[in-house]
Parts: sequence; C-alpha cells; structure tokens
Amino acid sequence: MILRIDRLQTELPPPSDPDPDGASNVQELLGGKFGEMSTFMNYTYQSFNFREREKLRPFYDLVSSIAAEEFGHIELVAHTIGTMLTGASIGEAAAVRNTQQFIAGGQGALCQDANGRPWTGDNVFSSGDLIEDLTHNFFLETGARNNKLKVYEMTAHPAARALTGYLLVRGGVHQLAYARALENLTGADLRKLFPSPRIPTDKIPECQPHIKEGSHTKLYRFSNNDYTQIAAVWNGTHPETGDDLTVEDGLPEGVVPNDPPAEPSVFAPDYAPEEIAEIASKLKEKAGIS
Amino acid sequence: MILRIDRLQTELPPPSDPDPDGASNVQELLGGKFGEMSTFMNYTYQSFNFREREKLRPFYDLVSSIAAEEFGHIELVAHTIGTMLTGASIGEAAAVRNTQQFIAGGQGALCQDANGRPWTGDNVFSSGDLIEDLTHNFFLETGARNNKLKVYEMTAHPAARALTGYLLVRGGVHQLAYARALENLTGADLRKLFPSPRIPTDKIPECQPHIKEGSHTKLYRFSNNDYTQIAAVWNGTHPETGDDLTVEDGLPEGVVPNDPPAEPSVFAPDYAPEEIAEIASKLKEKAGIS
Amino acid sequence: MILRIDRLQTELPPPSDPDPDGASNVQELLGGKFGEMSTFMNYTYQSFNFREREKLRPFYDLVSSIAAEEFGHIELVAHTIGTMLTGASIGEAAAVRNTQQFIAGGQGALCQDANGRPWTGDNVFSSGDLIEDLTHNFFLETGARNNKLKVYEMTAHPAARALTGYLLVRGGVHQLAYARALENLTGADLRKLFPSPRIPTDKIPECQPHIKEGSHTKLYRFSNNDYTQIAAVWNGTHPETGDDLTVEDGLPEGVVPNDPPAEPSVFAPDYAPEEIAEIASKLKEKAGIS
Amino acid sequence: MILRIDRLQTELPPPSDPDPDGASNVQELLGGKFGEMSTFMNYTYQSFNFREREKLRPFYDLVSSIAAEEFGHIELVAHTIGTMLTGASIGEAAAVRNTQQFIAGGQGALCQDANGRPWTGDNVFSSGDLIEDLTHNFFLETGARNNKLKVYEMTAHPAARALTGYLLVRGGVHQLAYARALENLTGADLRKLFPSPRIPTDKIPECQPHIKEGSHTKLYRFSNNDYTQIAAVWNGTHPETGDDLTVEDGLPEGVVPNDPPAEPSVFAPDYAPEEIAEIASKLKEKAGIS
Amino acid sequence: MILRIDRLQTELPPPSDPDPDGASNVQELLGGKFGEMSTFMNYTYQSFNFREREKLRPFYDLVSSIAAEEFGHIELVAHTIGTMLTGASIGEAAAVRNTQQFIAGGQGALCQDANGRPWTGDNVFSSGDLIEDLTHNFFLETGARNNKLKVYEMTAHPAARALTGYLLVRGGVHQLAYARALENLTGADLRKLFPSPRIPTDKIPECQPHIKEGSHTKLYRFSNNDYTQIAAVWNGTHPETGDDLTVEDGLPEGVVPNDPPAEPSVFAPDYAPEEIAEIASKLKEKAGIS
Amino acid sequence: MILRIDRLQTELPPPSDPDPDGASNVQELLGGKFGEMSTFMNYTYQSFNFREREKLRPFYDLVSSIAAEEFGHIELVAHTIGTMLTGASIGEAAAVRNTQQFIAGGQGALCQDANGRPWTGDNVFSSGDLIEDLTHNFFLETGARNNKLKVYEMTAHPAARALTGYLLVRGGVHQLAYARALENLTGADLRKLFPSPRIPTDKIPECQPHIKEGSHTKLYRFSNNDYTQIAAVWNGTHPETGDDLTVEDGLPEGVVPNDPPAEPSVFAPDYAPEEIAEIASKLKEKAGIS
Repeated sequence: MILRIDRLQTELPPPSDPDPDGASNVQELLGGKFGEMSTFMNYTYQSFNFREREKLRPFYDLVSSIAAEEFGHIELVAHTIGTMLTGASIGEAAAVRNTQQFIAGGQGALCQDANGRPWTGDNVFSSGDLIEDLTHNFFLETGARNNKLKVYEMTAHPAARALTGYLLVRGGVHQLAYARALENLTGADLRKLFPSPRIPTDKIPECQPHIKEGSHTKLYRFSNNDYTQIAAVWNGTHPETGDDLTVEDGLPEGVVPNDPPAEPSVFAPDYAPEEIAEIASKLKEKAGIS
Repeated sequence: MILRIDRLQTELPPPSDPDPDGASNVQELLGGKFGEMSTFMNYTYQSFNFREREKLRPFYDLVSSIAAEEFGHIELVAHTIGTMLTGASIGEAAAVRNTQQFIAGGQGALCQDANGRPWTGDNVFSSGDLIEDLTHNFFLETGARNNKLKVYEMTAHPAARALTGYLLVRGGVHQLAYARALENLTGADLRKLFPSPRIPTDKIPECQPHIKEGSHTKLYRFSNNDYTQIAAVWNGTHPETGDDLTVEDGLPEGVVPNDPPAEPSVFAPDYAPEEIAEIASKLKEKAGIS
Repeated sequence: MILRIDRLQTELPPPSDPDPDGASNVQELLGGKFGEMSTFMNYTYQSFNFREREKLRPFYDLVSSIAAEEFGHIELVAHTIGTMLTGASIGEAAAVRNTQQFIAGGQGALCQDANGRPWTGDNVFSSGDLIEDLTHNFFLETGARNNKLKVYEMTAHPAARALTGYLLVRGGVHQLAYARALENLTGADLRKLFPSPRIPTDKIPECQPHIKEGSHTKLYRFSNNDYTQIAAVWNGTHPETGDDLTVEDGLPEGVVPNDPPAEPSVFAPDYAPEEIAEIASKLKEKAGIS
Repeated sequence: MILRIDRLQTELPPPSDPDPDGASNVQELLGGKFGEMSTFMNYTYQSFNFREREKLRPFYDLVSSIAAEEFGHIELVAHTIGTMLTGASIGEAAAVRNTQQFIAGGQGALCQDANGRPWTGDNVFSSGDLIEDLTHNFFLETGARNNKLKVYEMTAHPAARALTGYLLVRGGVHQLAYARALENLTGADLRKLFPSPRIPTDKIPECQPHIKEGSHTKLYRFSNNDYTQIAAVWNGTHPETGDDLTVEDGLPEGVVPNDPPAEPSVFAPDYAPEEIAEIASKLKEKAGIS
Repeated sequence: MILRIDRLQTELPPPSDPDPDGASNVQELLGGKFGEMSTFMNYTYQSFNFREREKLRPFYDLVSSIAAEEFGHIELVAHTIGTMLTGASIGEAAAVRNTQQFIAGGQGALCQDANGRPWTGDNVFSSGDLIEDLTHNFFLETGARNNKLKVYEMTAHPAARALTGYLLVRGGVHQLAYARALENLTGADLRKLFPSPRIPTDKIPECQPHIKEGSHTKLYRFSNNDYTQIAAVWNGTHPETGDDLTVEDGLPEGVVPNDPPAEPSVFAPDYAPEEIAEIASKLKEKAGIS
Repeated sequence: MILRIDRLQTELPPPSDPDPDGASNVQELLGGKFGEMSTFMNYTYQSFNFREREKLRPFYDLVSSIAAEEFGHIELVAHTIGTMLTGASIGEAAAVRNTQQFIAGGQGALCQDANGRPWTGDNVFSSGDLIEDLTHNFFLETGARNNKLKVYEMTAHPAARALTGYLLVRGGVHQLAYARALENLTGADLRKLFPSPRIPTDKIPECQPHIKEGSHTKLYRFSNNDYTQIAAVWNGTHPETGDDLTVEDGLPEGVVPNDPPAEPSVFAPDYAPEEIAEIASKLKEKAGIS
C-alpha cells in the first residue's frame, strides 16, 4: 500500500514560454524504454515478485523503497511536460512533433516516449533472480542517465533543465545503489564503472545545487516504518565525490506543485472552467468544507 | 510523492495447489485493458495533468486518492499470481497458457494480460476535460467489474477468489465514486446504472464479508494530510444497499503479506538461495541491523 | 451483407492548397483510438456478436444501423486526407509529420492515427453485455467529439473544416442515440451530460448548416428493409435544441465524390497514368461498356 | 456509403458442441494478417485512395465492389466464432487458447488473430500504384487461401467447415479477379499460378456444392447502381474448371442468420436477459412497433 | 553460418551537411515493412525453414544466397543513416522527425521505420509453400522498389542518393530472380510486370553507373562453396535491357567503409573518446598487435 | 558483407517425436527479448553504428565478430524448432500453444517469442556509447543464459536439449567477452559475477562435451581476414574453469544440416512436393548442373 503526499520532490519553475517540441522529447524520460515509468514499474514488480524476502530483506528493502521514490519521478516528469505545454496554442500546433499531446491530452503528459509510442509492459524485467535483477537495474539506470543527459542537451526550457538536473542526481543514487548491492553480493567492484556515461555529474550546472546539498549521497526509505534494512547495502563512499553514503528516514521535504492554469481551448478542465468551478465551490459548501 | 507501507490491503491465502493456467487468467486483472495497471495509471496521470486543481479540489482529491488505492490493487493481483504459481514445476509447464511466467519471470507476475500481451500506455485516458475523464473512469470501472466477475467464474483457486471478492467491493466503490462525481457536476442520476454488470454484488460469497464490514461504503483518503475534500463528492447513499457513504482517514489497516518461498529451479531468488541469504545475513550484521 | 453506393454522405471541397501536416492530424479521426475506424468496428463487432437479437431487436437494430453509417464516415475522413495531400510535392515533404503518407501511400489515407501508429483491434470493445456496450459507446462518442473539436481547432484547411463540421453533427446523433438507449433501459437521464465536451455544437460555423437542415435530429436506418425498430429507442427531444428526434428511411442522398487527380511522382495511379488509362479504355471497349 | 442487409452470404449450421480452441484458430481468418479484416480493409482503403478513378473505372469498380463483399466475409467469420463458442462454460475455459473470448468478449468474436493478437492497420497496403496494389491483392488472396485451407484441416467443427468451404470458393474468385486485372493491364498470364496453394479446390467436400452452383465463376457488383464496369476486367475462363466468368448484379440472396442464444454467465446480453427483453418489449409497444 | 567481411558492397560518400530529417526517412529502407530488415529476414527464415532442400536445391540456393546479400544491404542503409547524422547537433535537433536517433542512438541507425516505429517479426512471411513464398518475395521486392524510389525523391542528400541508386539496381535483380523462379516453376511470364513501379530504372542517374557495369544482370552466390545451383533459376535475359543474366562466384569486391568520426555530445563512442582510445591502444600493445 | 556457409555450428539430432508445445517455448530463444534475434541484431547494429572504429578496433572487432557468430545461432534455433515440429499433424494441433506455427508457417520457425508475439526492433540497444553498449551486452547475455537454462528445464525434446547445451557454452563465451571488454576498459572485475545465473555450466550434461572440447574458452573471428584485434580483449582465464582464453581463426567446422522432410498437409514445400521436385530436376539438367 501507499500513502500519497501532494508535494513534488523538488521545485519546478512555473510555466514560461511554451515548448511543445521540447515537451515531446521530455516524454522519453516518462514513457521511454529508460524513462521513469520503466524504473518505477521495474522495481515495483520486482518487489511484488520477491521470493524469500525475509532472508534477503536488505535487498528487498532496497528495491521496494527505490520503487517508491520513482513514483515521485514520474510525477515530476509529468508536471514538467504540463509546464512546457502551458500557454501553447492548439491553433498553431499542427506541425509539432506530438500532436496527441493536444488531441488526446489536455496539453499534458501522455504515457508515451519521444516518438509518440506508448510505454509498454515489455519494459519490465522481473526475473526473480536477485543478482540478475540487480544487474538489470544497474544497466537500466545507466541507460536512464544517458537519456537524461541527452534530453538536457536537446531541450533548453527551464523546466526541462530543472527536471534533468534533479533526476540526474537522484538517478545517480539509484545507479550506485544497485552497484553497491551487486558488490555486496559478489565482490565485484562496479564503482569503477562510474560515472557512466563518463561525464562528471557536477559538470551539469543544474546538478550542482543538489550535489551541494548532499542529495547524491542520500537514500531515502520513503516509508514511515518499513524498509529499514537498506543500510546493510547503501554504505561506503560515493565513487565520484568520496562522500559517505547515508540513509535518510522518510522522504524529502518537497514542495507544493504549481497549479497548472486552465487551457479552455482543449477543454482542460472544461470549455467554461469557471462554471464547473462554481459547482465545485457549492459542493464544498454543502459538505461543510472551507 | 508517496510513502510505501509493506502491507497488503486485504488478506490472501497462502500458496496451496499451484494453478498456472489460472494465474495466466488473473493476469487480465493486472495488465489487461481493464486491469489494475489501467485503473492505477489512468487516475495517476489524470491527477498529474489536472488543471485548475485549486478551484476543483474535490475532484482532484477524488482522482488522486483513488489512484493511491489502486497501487495497492496492482500489489494484490501480483501477489495472487505469485501465490498461484508457487509450487508449480517448470518441468511440467511446457503446455500452460503463459510460459513466460516461468521463462521471463521467476514464477511471478508479468506486466501482461490474459493472452500474454503487455500492458500499454495506450490504455491511459487523460484528456484533461474533467467531465470526460470522469465519464471514462466510470466506464473503466464498469469494464473492470465485468472482468473481475469473469475471472472469478473462470478460476476457482482460493487466492483468485479471495482477490476478486475484495476487488469487486473496492472497485464498486470507485465505480460509484465516479458516478457520484458526474452526478454532482451534471445532475444526471447515474446510480440507476448500478450494479453494472447487473449481478448483485452480495451474490458473490467472497464479497459478503467485505460488505458486512461496510467496505462498500468507505472511501479512504490514502494520505495523511491531503485529499481532504473528497467528502464534497463522496456522499449520499449506496445504490445497492442504501447505506450511507463515508470518508475514512488514511488507509485500511491491512496485513503483512506472505513471504513467497524460493523457487530455485527458476533461480528465484537464486539457484542456491541459502548462499545469498548468508551474505545478506552478514551484511546486516556488519551494518548493525538485528 | 452490404450494398455499396459510390457517393459520399456530405460534400467535401475540392483540393486546394495542400496541407500534409494537417492531413497527418486528420488521421486521428480515422485511425485514432476515437477515430471512425473505432466507431465503425466497435458497432460492427457488437452487431455480429449480439445475442438474443430477436428479443432485443430495438437495440440490435440501433447498433447495426449506426455501424452502417460509420462506414460512410471512414470514407469521408479518407477522402479528406487525400484532398489535403493532393498537390503536395514529395520532394518537399521530408520534414512533414507523417512521411509514410508519401512513402507507403500515394498521398492518401493510411490506417493510422495522428502520431503515425496503426489502428488496432484492441480498440474494439464488444463485451456482449448490452448495457456495458452501450455505456462504452456513449463514452466512445464523447471521446470522438472531443477529438473532432480539437482537430477542427488545429487544422484550418477547408476540407478538414467541412469534414469536422459534418462529423460533429452526425457523431452527436450517435452520442445521443446511445444515451437514449441507456436511458430507456435503466431510467438514468444521461441527456444531462450533453453537450460533452461542453461547447455548444452550434458555436461551430461549419456545423450550423447541418443543424439548420435538422441533421442533428435524424437517425437513418441505412438499410432498405432492416433495422426498422430503432424508433423504439430513438425518440424524445434533442438535449441541446429541444427538437423532436426522428427516424429516416434509407440513407442521406449524398454526393458524388471528387475524382482525385493523379500524383505521378508517387506512382498514383502510375508513373505514366495516361498509358494505363488507355488500356482501361480499350478493355471497356472490348467489353462493350460505353 | 453503404446499405446494410441483415442476412449472411451463406448458411452456417446452428450451434452444436462448443469448440473454444477451434474458435481461437478461426480468429486467424478474421484478424490474422491474411484474415478477412485484411481483405476488407485493404480493398476499402484502396478504393478510398484511388486516383483517376474515372479513367480507370474498371479497376476502381473491381476493387470497390470486392471490398463490399468482404464486409460479408468478416460477418460470416464472426458468426462462426460465436457459433463455436455458444454453449461453452466459462467455468471450464481456464486452459483454452484464448480466454479473452470469455473475459473480454461475451463468447464472441474478437478483433484478433489465432495467437490472440489484435488486427492492425499495418496490414493495410494502399500504395496508390494500381499495378502494385493489384500485385499485393493477388498475393494477399493467395495467403488467405493458404490460411483457410489450414484452418479447415485444423478445425473439424461443422461451422468452421461450412465457413471455410464457402470462403475458399469466394476467395478464389477474388484471387482470380486480381490476377485477371493484372493480366489485362500487363499481358502476364498469371492464371498459370492457379490453384495456389496447389491443391484443387474441388477436393474440399465443403467447396463442392458452391462450385456446383457456379459460385466460383460469379463476381457480384454488391451495389444497386454502381461498379458496373467490372465486366471489363472479370471475363475469360476459370483456370481450374474452364467455365466462363460472369458478372452478377447486386448480391447473393443470402440467409437470415441464426439468433445466438444468451450466455448469461458472461452477461451476454445480460445477467438476467429476460428482464431487459421485457424492457425492449415495452419500448416497442410504446413506439407502436409490432 | 556466415563469415563476415569488413567491407561495404558499394561506395558511400563521406559525411557532408547533416540531414536528420532525411535520415529519419531513410529509416524506412531499413526498418520499414519493405525495408532491408524485411528482405534480409524473410529470405533468411525461408532458408532456415526450407523443407526438401535437396530435391529443390536451385530454389533453396536462390533464397539462401539472396538472404546473404541482404545482410550487406542493411549494412549499407545503416551506414547511410550514420553518415547523414554525422555533424548534426543535438542542441538543435529538438524538432527533427526522429529524436530517438539522438536520444536512444548515438546519431546512428535505429531498428525503426520512417515514422519511428520498430521493425517487427510480423514482417516475416515464411509459409514453407515454395510457390507462395516466391510470390510473396516478388511482391516484397516490388514494394521495396517503390519505397526506394520514393525515398530517392524525398531525400537529396548525396549519401541517400548513392544508397538508393545502388539498392534500386540490386533490388531489381532480386525482384527479377523471384519472378524467374516463379516462371520456371509455373510457366507464367512475370517478366511482363517489369519494371514495377513502371519507371525505367535507367532514368535514375545514380543507377546508371551500376547498370553500365552490368550489376543489374549479375546474381552473386555470396558463398565460397555453396549455393551453386542458382544458375538453374537465374538465366534468360533482363526484361528491361535484354542483357543475359549471369551468376557470379562469391561476392562483389566492395570497399572499406568510412570510419564515422566521434560525436562526443551524444557519447559516441564516449564523452572523452581520446581517453578510451588510449586504453585501446595499450591493450593492443599488450596483446602484441601492431 | 557476409559469405554464407551452408553448415550448422553444431550437430542437432534428426526429427523424432514431434513436440509442438516444446517448439513454441524454444521460440523464446529465437524471438524473445533475450533470444538470438536480439543478440544477433544488437551486435550487428552496434557494429554498423560504431564511431571511431580505427582507434577502438579491438572493441569494434569484438562486437562485429560476435555478431557474425550469432547468425549461426538464429540458424540453430530455427532448425531446432523445425525439427521439433516435423511429423506433427495439423489435424491434431488445434490446442497447441502456437497454432501459427502451422497456419502461418509450414511447421517451421516464426519470428516470435514463446507467447507468440513478434520480435521487435525495440529489443535493439545501440547507444553508440561503448561502455554502455558493453554493459548492455553483458546484461543481455546474462538474461539469455537465464532463458536458455529455463527452456532447457521446460523442454526435454532431444533437439531442444542439444541446442541449449551448445548455446549455453557459446553464450557463456559472449557473456565473458563483454565482461572482459568492460574490465579492460574500466578495471572493474566483472568476472566475479560468473556464473550468472549462479548454476555451474558443467552441471548441464549437454554442456559437458562442449566444455571438454574447450569450446567455452574459444572466441572465433568468423572472418577470413578481418576482426584480428579481438585478442586485445579476449585474454586471461575463464572464471569457472581457470582455462586460458584463446582466439580462433575463422569459424568452427560445423556440420551439414539435416534436410527437413516435406509436410504436404501444410504445403511445405507443396501439396504435391514430388511434382515441383521434378521441375527442379529438369531445370538443373537444362542448366547443366549434376
């Protein structure tokens, strides 16, 4: 089960100049093979299917709690896409890369990749073999880092940059966590593969504030009472900075998300939003909600 | 963001006689068009893409909190599938319906439907138009109820029956919640469509204990502090029983899930699970975890 | 069985300035999830699979005859796409949204959506449960209305505008027909959901002539002798205009379609069309056809 | 546009012993790459996209009218599948090949192939190049003949046998029609490729009555007033029998289809069909329909 | 088994002005339904599945050796795409047709078509029926010729032109080879269908040098010792030029491919290519390779 | 370019008892995500897209030559499937797992996985980043080893056992080759991950003869003159046996494949194979081939 908190893990800038083509590319980080849908669903299914979780709890806890963080990542990418589409005009969108963001969506995120193809369950790898699943996860995070770096280069919109700066740091934590898990199980020193792709993370300006805060060394439990054994795996030092790795209780403080404004020309949330807002207002009043 | 709790929303029986063909059919409730992946992801994306959430908070809260409950539903279905596959022998599985549950998975759940095809992002409808999204959601829950009833009929395994008994009641709550939302917005009396399919829920023996507990009338917020305005929508009486609809804080108590035993012949969690269990044990010791 | 009539249900303007990007977006109305392939095939399969059609003939007739009208809709959308592509140059098309309209097609319609993905049988819902199928169909027509409105906004080409103006009116008839069917079966007053999306149809200039002719109130049988019982369902008044709903025998008069000119650079119908035209001419002569 | 006639092109036997596995294989003739969805949609799209139809009318008429016949073929295959599933029990269907025929459908046809995968628009070839389209169509009918012969061998159910016996004869007409069209355009003598696959059609017992009636030599216009120029192409003699090829006005007489009985356990048409039948009866009465 | 030779079948120009949109269209010739992946895999699977190959060796040899040539064709198309993408800037690529060439690839070829959709095994036809497989192959080569001609028209980049000029001639050989095979088996004179599409090959300037060299009449065995019986099928004269058809031992001389330069901004082959080049250099030294 | 040799890399037993369900599962090793189509195409595309191949030739040569070996692997799997289907009866195949092996194929291999879904280009990873591609390849071979082990357990047919015994050894070579490449580039000691899955290879009886011959230590160049620098990467000792790793010129000797007998009931190669065999015989005679 989950409890949901109506906050984002990091701050995103408010809507500025719309960038529909940029938004179509950010979709790769949501619904692409190495997008956050994939990280979220891979770890989620692996946690569901985990056998002998009692005896292997440090690993079960690791996969389970990282899965929980990934929910917050699909949330961030989706909000970024919505931000980049806010203010765009459907009347001028006929030649953008992904017109379904307007036709099927309400200038919002789709469950698709950068070429407008849907995310698919074929992207989930859950073999049940712990070492294999971890090998996969390390590879998945490597591919994810690659894609984030490229979307960063391709898309200069401030929301995309803030997003990728944050995700690169947090994805790096997960990439390292799976490497550490494999190292602890087998003795192989995978930290020598870092960074991969071999561009130092602190070269990305938007990553620097997060590194300064130490986000690159912190693994959150994303639970009140569970997943306490991740400390058996997440330990040692960071391969890029040498800093100690630490486990954090709960989750980051986060921020209240921006409230995306109406786009009445695509009926989001309605052709006449003020009319349904008034109904909502009356319903609240009737229910005694202030 | 989410906090994850390592408990299931309801109790599932432990593994008994394995039922691989049954498990392949239960996959429809996970990765089918009307499976829990679809309910989870539809409401999640709709909440991410929701515009004017402040003015329309009762509806935003409704969609957001039901999304949170659905995570627990994919968890339940996945555990059911794992339970039904536990104890099956790969050497005797060559003619079962979905051999990938053994070849690709470790006798566990796949992100697929009953015909072995992956769930896809094309199943997500998130138009941004509130009334349309709610119309869709009501239809989606209707199709989901249909599929649960049919899998119930097709699969007599106790885990499948416990699962569908619970999900029929909780899915019925969501079906009604979206109907109520539409009614409150438009004045149309959709409750006349209940039950749909037109079989009374209390005819299903496995539903009866949940109805007795009043589960069919309760909508949980699945949050500590957020989604408090669902009471503006979830009110009135239940169309089948006439009972009052009530909002519950937080989430159901739930139960600790069974720990699925190893299946070494499919390397889940390993060819020699006791060896990696010993490593885990040492890692815990080293980290000072008891 | 069907008889085919070589006429279109409404008049489309002849080719003018080509608009390949516009044509790629109109594809959504053909091969998209809510396109006319979906409406045509959903109702067709539902009619094929209908059980107890004698006892439920008013509903069987309704679904069957609307299916027949939908054939004319895929025809109209395909002709519109061909019209919008006529006169475009393959040498200048390298950066258009859907280059397969040139490479795979002969500057004509593909069985694809606006993102260049094929229509799929997964879009067909045919549960056999009458109330569910009708609930689905109402939702499908709602999504279809949404998509038509958006393509209307996105694409100013006169053929696209003529198409969407007509389809919005006719699709509105089908949306209402399924609502009426549900109302008649259950007593729920779905007409309160109209219009959905909540933009009045008569605000669209290209809809006005069709509304003036009363097209929004007429349901055609699209058969010489069959489907006579639709009058048991299609009755009452129109929720937007209050006009009486009427059943029409047969089909609309329609118009002879434009004959799309050759595009020899994509070999449609040939690299040297006049040569094969001469062969055709001789074959006719030989067969005594004038 | 089309007019629909509520009759089947040939007689199918009533339900007898159910055969769900057989029904899953007959799906190949509906939604497979070479199934009737493919023949129907290929010729339909080719007719929609046809350029210079006036000058090439014999060919336009040929493709257009064969398209119309193919609607009747998807209808026949769907009815066959429904017939084969009638009387099957969902409680005993857990191990059949395609359980979605029960879960997603109401023991009826799906828009899928024999492996439970959906028909897709990628199966449509409509290049606009007349000679290429005809080359494709000849190949498509050859593949279709192959698949019908194999389903015939695989499935002994009387409905499947009646279906394939009829379709083999009619598909043979279309295979020959496209060969004749190519011969008339190019001079190549494709009739030397007949039969392909090289099994004589009259070896199939279920084909013999249709051959005796001359069905293998008749091409119907499937229109009241249009498609009159097919006689310029459909002429000469049959490559297997030497009989003269003839054009028929209109369409075959056909038969009234069986009314498939209710399957209440899959809610088709309802959990309690008699209740909604009574509503239908009242609606008819109210509308003055006897 | 195969032996690989590190040479291309024909010369391609070195990188010049990058053309990402052009490269996205050339993808159709690689991963499209009629692309070289399809020709390669169709003939490869047909050769694997060939029954009674001893008795039918001329045909087995034909299909097997053409399959071998097609490997060289996917190689050529992939190199062309890489050439066209070399020098492009990811920072300026946000609005190109296929951004996955940058995000998923390293400015290189993907296994996709012109609309960014993956090649699929559904494109493989391998019925085992020799005459049908040959009929299919003739059709496939016809569609492939069509697509090459259109990509030629759409894309003026010198690499694309060199590629299509060569492939049109070699593909024409295969189209004719399958026609000859069918003629030899059945007596039908398919050569009357040439050229198809009906544009004379020698009208394409980039085809002329290859025709001058006689490439259009030569079928290579692409083997040292095997596939010697193709001469039983590949004989007679060329339908366009009347030249004699000849069998060539082995394979064309070919050319050493250009070495595509690094694109460090997409990490191909690395963020700092010189660093890993130095490692490679040391490894060679250590292994005694000069 | 390639030269093709009409020999298999290892001996497969001749047809014995047919095993259609087994054959459907062996498809996973051909068209599954981790099947030989994936290994073949991943390395092939990586070699096509390789940038700076001169400076990084040891790695380019490694990937290129392993790609060449993989062609032989798809060949072996396809022959195994054909062997397992030989002698099966289409009349008794209605309930087997993959009936398309009979309907679409001629009792031969399809380009599909164990659930009857096509291989897709989405399985190709070719990022251009050398370290990432190698990381992927190591993971891919790990997944492939897992799938081979499981198909081995699931399918006792002698052809399947011979196949998997051989492929496990050769796949192990490739898994190690990519590990060695990564080790040589980064210093990480990936050999500690062997074997993965953690079952010793020599526990599989069908692997033992190949290990005895030293096949597990040999990397073939699969070229006459090229790919000579693989020795810079493939060196050191085997992690399971401690034996020295060696580079072999050319390719294994291999064996002439069995000639699969006709299956006339599925028209492979014909309904009357002896008739077309006679034509072939005459064509050979006419061409002077003995």
